[in-house]
Amino acid sequence: MSEVNERLAALRQEMAKAGADYYIIPSQDAHQSEYVAGYWRARAYFSGFTGSAGTLIVTKDEACVWADGRYHIQVVKETEGTDVTPVKMGLPGVPSPNEWLKDHVKEGETVAYDGRTFSTKGSRELEKLLPQARILFTEDLAGKAWPDRPALPAGPVFELGVEYTGESRADKLTRIRRHMQEQNADYLMLASLDDIAWTLNLRGRDILYTPVFYSYLLIGRDKAWLCIDDQKLNEEIRSGLGKDGVDVGPYDCLPELLRTLPVGKILLDEARINKLLSGSVPGTWTIQSETDITTVYKACKNETEQKNFQTAHVKDGAAMVRFIKWLKEAVKDPAQNLDEYSIGEKLKEIRLSCDSCFDLSFGTIAGYGPNGSIIHYSAKKETAAALKPEGMIVVDSGGQYYEGTTDITRTIALGPVTDRMRFIYTLVLKGHLQLANAVFMEGTEGHYLDILAREPLWKHGMDFRHGTGHGVGFALAVHEGPQNIGLRKDVPVALEPGMVTSDEPGYYPEGEFGVRIENLILTKEACRTSDGCFLKFENLTLCPYEPDLIDVSLLTAEEKEWLDAYNKRIREALSPYLTEEEREWLAAETGR
Amino acid sequence: MSEVNERLAALRQEMAKAGADYYIIPSQDAHQSEYVAGYWRARAYFSGFTGSAGTLIVTKDEACVWADGRYHIQVVKETEGTDVTPVKMGLPGVPSPNEWLKDHVKEGETVAYDGRTFSTKGSRELEKLLPQARILFTEDLAGKAWPDRPALPAGPVFELGVEYTGESRADKLTRIRRHMQEQNADYLMLASLDDIAWTLNLRGRDILYTPVFYSYLLIGRDKAWLCIDDQKLNEEIRSGLGKDGVDVGPYDCLPELLRTLPVGKILLDEARINKLLSGSVPGTWTIQSETDITTVYKACKNETEQKNFQTAHVKDGAAMVRFIKWLKEAVKDPAQNLDEYSIGEKLKEIRLSCDSCFDLSFGTIAGYGPNGSIIHYSAKKETAAALKPEGMIVVDSGGQYYEGTTDITRTIALGPVTDRMRFIYTLVLKGHLQLANAVFMEGTEGHYLDILAREPLWKHGMDFRHGTGHGVGFALAVHEGPQNIGLRKDVPVALEPGMVTSDEPGYYPEGEFGVRIENLILTKEACRTSDGCFLKFENLTLCPYEPDLIDVSLLTAEEKEWLDAYNKRIREALSPYLTEEEREWLAAETGR
Repeated sequence: MSEVNERLAALRQEMAKAGADYYIIPSQDAHQSEYVAGYWRARAYFSGFTGSAGTLIVTKDEACVWADGRYHIQVVKETEGTDVTPVKMGLPGVPSPNEWLKDHVKEGETVAYDGRTFSTKGSRELEKLLPQARILFTEDLAGKAWPDRPALPAGPVFELGVEYTGESRADKLTRIRRHMQEQNADYLMLASLDDIAWTLNLRGRDILYTPVFYSYLLIGRDKAWLCIDDQKLNEEIRSGLGKDGVDVGPYDCLPELLRTLPVGKILLDEARINKLLSGSVPGTWTIQSETDITTVYKACKNETEQKNFQTAHVKDGAAMVRFIKWLKEAVKDPAQNLDEYSIGEKLKEIRLSCDSCFDLSFGTIAGYGPNGSIIHYSAKKETAAALKPEGMIVVDSGGQYYEGTTDITRTIALGPVTDRMRFIYTLVLKGHLQLANAVFMEGTEGHYLDILAREPLWKHGMDFRHGTGHGVGFALAVHEGPQNIGLRKDVPVALEPGMVTSDEPGYYPEGEFGVRIENLILTKEACRTSDGCFLKFENLTLCPYEPDLIDVSLLTAEEKEWLDAYNKRIREALSPYLTEEEREWLAAETGR
Repeated sequence: MSEVNERLAALRQEMAKAGADYYIIPSQDAHQSEYVAGYWRARAYFSGFTGSAGTLIVTKDEACVWADGRYHIQVVKETEGTDVTPVKMGLPGVPSPNEWLKDHVKEGETVAYDGRTFSTKGSRELEKLLPQARILFTEDLAGKAWPDRPALPAGPVFELGVEYTGESRADKLTRIRRHMQEQNADYLMLASLDDIAWTLNLRGRDILYTPVFYSYLLIGRDKAWLCIDDQKLNEEIRSGLGKDGVDVGPYDCLPELLRTLPVGKILLDEARINKLLSGSVPGTWTIQSETDITTVYKACKNETEQKNFQTAHVKDGAAMVRFIKWLKEAVKDPAQNLDEYSIGEKLKEIRLSCDSCFDLSFGTIAGYGPNGSIIHYSAKKETAAALKPEGMIVVDSGGQYYEGTTDITRTIALGPVTDRMRFIYTLVLKGHLQLANAVFMEGTEGHYLDILAREPLWKHGMDFRHGTGHGVGFALAVHEGPQNIGLRKDVPVALEPGMVTSDEPGYYPEGEFGVRIENLILTKEACRTSDGCFLKFENLTLCPYEPDLIDVSLLTAEEKEWLDAYNKRIREALSPYLTEEEREWLAAETGR
């Protein structure tokens, strides 16, 4: 029997004991994080499917795991030889997990899940969907059937000084409390890990690449309570928190704490606070659900953060230039045996050699040739493709600097490229530039700008199937809300001054190659006229595009001028961080 | 006492008799039409305010009339010397009529309106808004207090043959019934006048410029009932309707008819069917509200309609060229005494001299100099501005042809123009061309394309405060749903092959001048690739842009090529309809 089948058998024993006919295991942790610690990877443990998103549903005699388009191939491979049925979500006629449940659950059956892994909102949707069922959300059955479950991480927390964040913890708490007062609220509850890190000017090491720490934060009118594993805090941080009126209690103390506090009105985001936690708010309290105000605040970077972001991007640009120069040279030498994985390790080494870079911001995506067309490709050491001095490679990577988070994609020519590659690269570049150079009225949502990045491709019957831009945190999550640039119009968030967003169109002819170009862009005021306030973007990313892939004949005069100015800016900004040899290489690369 | 005050006094007497504390008079007729016949102009009669949209609310001692931004100046002027308070809707802090009612209506008070003038949806919103009130919607109090109310119009109905419409009445009914069957419905009720006209291939003369006729249409599984003032139909039309299974009954017979029919499920659009009518559907029936399927069908013009549209635009283009040539020459002769009104009359004369043009499609907007900056300007004979051989004039006009409806705006130089005028005209033109030349994926909504028309202006801190494009009917309403191109994202309608939409960006520096450029564009398939189906637009309008206002140095090579090709197309298409002299003028005008 496969390992996964044995694990499922153990889970089914626990389900039988609890009287559960269905057990649902989603991907999230108790904080609705995008990336989670090992403790929370129950879906992968019980199904074998390791993708970053998906849902497992286990019954007495079935186990189905849902995976989205990114993982259709992977989910089949990883469930082979087990009793788990892979479900390719998004294909026509394929039900979603909820649709599947609606079809299968019979009158009086019991549907169970770990209440920590469902948002209050998701949990309510499930109840509405299954009026015929008994819903059991208080039992962590997966945990009971998982003997060697990893412990919750216990990495140390560190402080990010006001020279980086530009606003003290005390000032942030004051700002949040002003909002609470406007809403007539006595409390505000945060479970979102990057919101807590932002509020307290603290960072952690609990989740790979995202410098957060597992905790909850309850803010009262003049006190606050941080619920966190005690050993993560050193004396200095603890005393600093105390000075700012933040008490520290155990990670799981929030339900008990709520019972001891005076009755009041509490603000929380039902899309972020899990079912078990919202259920522990005493029934006498008033709950008002809204987007966490900290999500709104942290999206608009203050002047210090903006300046730091610029610094981070100079350092990151120098690392990228060093890397590209090395790559283009090393690939010519067969003795070096370069592959997708090893060059990722080299890039990591270069980035981390900078003092203020304390981590990568996500696992490097390096896709050579046909692998470049797999949008979320992740090269494994054993199976990584070898690089040859021809064709092109997509490298999507980023670093965590004390001065900000970076995220950059360059498509790099390793040798001779075809006209088709140059044609497509140039169209992608035109869309990328058109978005970066947009001017737009205050109040404009990202959705409305999206066509600027797609139109050059659409003109030739081509499209890319991913969003064009996501928000980026300040030394925090590389994917940060609330703004978004994409085809989806259901993100009703205007782009505001201070927001940092990615600009990353691409094109991915299957089995051929991939092209993606990504910079981070900062929203700034452009001008105020009698027609209103207009905004624009400032390019944060400083790294040349691939001259070997640009078909200059397809560029307008304006685009050529813009590229010249950008290259000049790169040379001036990065030179102090480069060796003489690197400077010369950069001059040649950007002088063509 | 002013006339309006006397009228209000009479209305208040009727309100007292009916026990009404508030009486609401909106702008709509019983069919939720955009433009209405005199019978329905109660709001203008009782308030003095004649704008095309607005709401009057009358109480025992107050009368307030709401007007939107287009009419802020006019509403103040027209209510001067009366007891009516003008309310400038849209200004900060100014309540909407519903907000005002919510604030004012006290427990147990009675709010009345003519149930014909409120959609079922609007009526339900009012009920929700005022749980404290008694709502009375069965009384036409305005009618009782309006002795010389105009009669309902009784213009003759005429048939539009299948050589124009491309689909017979019988085929349209079959298509509608197929949809009814899919929805398991026995009946479909239409009140929207252009939907009825489209379904029956009939046109009328009841509303100025919109060739519709007041009526209701009920479609059953194998019979249909047209409720219409008998005298509008001639024997031939009546017999043709009979052959297609359409019975004719009086205009107001629908409530009675419904009582005699077998119980069933009925489809209707609660945003279009008035409260009184939906209330007459027997309680035993099932009502399903949805957008009228005819609105969806008629938006996509069939091949015959598309071909006819092209013909109409050749004829209309010739009329416009004739007009522009005449205007540019006549304005140089002071003896001609041209003014905004007289040139509108001349344009009307030229258009109507074409046999297949049976009406204008709306009242011509001709705004010279500063008047051009008033977006919905309508020159009155007495106060029209005199034209001089300098500066520019905006002329927005259109015709009703048997082959389709036209809507075109040209901004015309009457003599020397400033660099600023040329700069702005050229930016508007660039946006207009960028939208017309868009290629986009199937499923794209108009909202998503809107920025293409605005971006050249936004780049310079300029914006226009109106939509960019509206649907246009086939020998029907010049404003037709459901598609829309604009900043508003709440029109969830994809642009589909066969749709005809306007492309009309502009700019209006207050007190200086106005620029607007408008063509009609037809959605067509561009290509099918592995990425999906892509759509594009075909320009229907054939009339040169103003060469004196184009700053060629601001155009890209692509734009210049496009303009050359467009001018060539215009010359070839219009020449057969022009005199030798006009052809020469056109060649010179488009050859620069």
